[in-house]
Amino acid sequence: MKIKLNENYNNLTKNYLFSEIAKRVAEYSAAHPEKRVVRLGIGDVTLPLTPSVTDAMAKAVAQMGKKETFRGYPPYYGYDFLLDAIAHHYARYGVKLETSEIYVSDGAKSDAGNINDIFGKNPVFIVDPVYPVYFDANVMAGNDISFISGTKENGFLPSPDGITADGAIIYLCSPNNPTGAVYDRKGLKKWVDFAKKTGSLIVFDSAYEAYITGDLPHSIFEIDGARECAIEICSFSKTAGFTGVRCSWTVIPKELAVGGVRVGEMWERRQATKFNGVPYIVQRGAAAALSDKGFEECRGLVGYYMENAKIISELLTKKGIYFTGGISAPYIWMKCPSGLSSWEFFDKLLDTVQVVGTPGEGFGKNGQGYFRLTSFGSREDTLEAVRRLETVL
Amino acid sequence: MKIKLNENYNNLTKNYLFSEIAKRVAEYSAAHPEKRVVRLGIGDVTLPLTPSVTDAMAKAVAQMGKKETFRGYPPYYGYDFLLDAIAHHYARYGVKLETSEIYVSDGAKSDAGNINDIFGKNPVFIVDPVYPVYFDANVMAGNDISFISGTKENGFLPSPDGITADGAIIYLCSPNNPTGAVYDRKGLKKWVDFAKKTGSLIVFDSAYEAYITGDLPHSIFEIDGARECAIEICSFSKTAGFTGVRCSWTVIPKELAVGGVRVGEMWERRQATKFNGVPYIVQRGAAAALSDKGFEECRGLVGYYMENAKIISELLTKKGIYFTGGISAPYIWMKCPSGLSSWEFFDKLLDTVQVVGTPGEGFGKNGQGYFRLTSFGSREDTLEAVRRLETVL
Repeated sequence: MKIKLNENYNNLTKNYLFSEIAKRVAEYSAAHPEKRVVRLGIGDVTLPLTPSVTDAMAKAVAQMGKKETFRGYPPYYGYDFLLDAIAHHYARYGVKLETSEIYVSDGAKSDAGNINDIFGKNPVFIVDPVYPVYFDANVMAGNDISFISGTKENGFLPSPDGITADGAIIYLCSPNNPTGAVYDRKGLKKWVDFAKKTGSLIVFDSAYEAYITGDLPHSIFEIDGARECAIEICSFSKTAGFTGVRCSWTVIPKELAVGGVRVGEMWERRQATKFNGVPYIVQRGAAAALSDKGFEECRGLVGYYMENAKIISELLTKKGIYFTGGISAPYIWMKCPSGLSSWEFFDKLLDTVQVVGTPGEGFGKNGQGYFRLTSFGSREDTLEAVRRLETVL
Repeated sequence: MKIKLNENYNNLTKNYLFSEIAKRVAEYSAAHPEKRVVRLGIGDVTLPLTPSVTDAMAKAVAQMGKKETFRGYPPYYGYDFLLDAIAHHYARYGVKLETSEIYVSDGAKSDAGNINDIFGKNPVFIVDPVYPVYFDANVMAGNDISFISGTKENGFLPSPDGITADGAIIYLCSPNNPTGAVYDRKGLKKWVDFAKKTGSLIVFDSAYEAYITGDLPHSIFEIDGARECAIEICSFSKTAGFTGVRCSWTVIPKELAVGGVRVGEMWERRQATKFNGVPYIVQRGAAAALSDKGFEECRGLVGYYMENAKIISELLTKKGIYFTGGISAPYIWMKCPSGLSSWEFFDKLLDTVQVVGTPGEGFGKNGQGYFRLTSFGSREDTLEAVRRLETVL
């Protein structure tokens, strides 16, 4: 063939992180079949869907099997019943949204990747370390990318101090994956002020907001001025255990415009052309998850994982090891002890106590020398992992 | 904000077709509340999901509610059980595929739009008239688009004769929406030969293949040489009534490569970055639809709609009106009588017999003077519409 492929894909660096982890664990298990490996590296939920959700989905399946209640093409941007449920959810945090500012989709990852479609060439700023999708999507688009350094010094919550921008796209993720660090109101306000001053747009990923405890912002729209400079991407994946159900949303405030063109209108055209809505059955489950009863059940899921996080955090505190996260996020980001590199620490844990985590350098340059533990396993595995870790830390 | 938006969006022409139809019908109904309007313009299915599908989905919902059977993130490209079911479906038409050549997705529209991501700048050829998504997605990408004219002379099945190309992307849709015209093996072979000769890639949309009767190709991969020059996008929407369930697939043969880079590998990276798979529940329903029992049930859905198509086609034949489709497609594409324009004919039908169809010019320049009728309504409405049309045609 003589067609041209997207040459920007040549600039992607294949992330071998998870395949490398799998390879090393498989090799170890083959050599030591008698040893049970315990995983604290899982980024996926493990608890089942809650009764409100499965009841709503079962009912929707039955409706789809009857002529009178069958539903064809869903609305591109979500059924009103789900948009209402999402607006109701934001009201829990004191944020008032019009339903026409909310766009339902099949995943925060899809929206975080596809949002690029509506932008021209802009300088891009991405926090390091972070979830790799923002970076890869911008590499695919051939954009000019700069990193914002998350470090021990700033608690992995970098501020815009010292950054020069003029009409940039800035990706923030709070609670952050992998560091679990969460911006407070003052920290987020600095970013909002910076974005407004520099004519920039913040793409704010709040996928882990349900894990927040205390007076920290769940949504960037809790911050004054954010409606003029931010869009927010959030998901049911971690809030309601929907990783296998696929539902998310993006909020684009009406005020957001460039030269009179509303950003929301651009996204509407993008989605109407290259997307056809989320399954009716899924939307019914999602709406049930955000109902008062369903949300209470979701608090139960989150509470279970956060108890795991507490168990891990307490060990690290006791051992005097520096870490972020674990209080308002399902992730614990720890400094590898004794100056070990991420992979050296990985090998040490696997060899000595058969505990598996995730080397930090898979999330960016600043992840070197760090290690991610997650709270998505079972209580039993978490307790067992902590017992084992206690002997080597 | 000072960010740049995608300027190519300025070149999109808003398609007012369906909103204009809705407006005219609403105005007519307001002025004539005693008249019942019958719709033959629906492009969405109306029959409910079949028992095999709802049983499989109900079971999957229950599994998702139990810890032992819960499933988190789905594989990016589809569960093996669904890939196997799709490969089994292709075997019905004598096409042998490896499951690693099949990529499950949430809609043919999504894939038809998103496939552009993996291409560089190439000349693009699109049949006119056709489903508007190929065009709009290429406008958004700023590509150079040429039309291939479907006309009464070529039975709305244009051939590559007279076209010059060098490494182009060619969009074909067969059975075609809106004309219902279907390429035979000889007609498709000419396109495959042309693509191979010119180093071009065919994007083949076979979303309506289940409506084909007789010895016409359901898949472009029934044609010799297609594995070296074509990808195919197909959907459960019209085969199994999945418009509200959202499931589709794209086939990219292993042979397809540019300078040693497999096209499939490009799509894998695109989907792994900007997509996270199709809901487990949906995939179980989709696999059930392609099982032998489920597919027999789907034949029932298709048979019902095709009986509607036959009822409409027989009237047009009796009246001596030129039309395509209706035999191997749910669409009937008719010449407006007495030289009326698409909209004149629309108004005439609404005013005199209260039957609503779709003006052809909404599908491209060559749709002027044509009108699309669809068979997705109920039997009763179809019979009533035909009784009314008989009085004015």
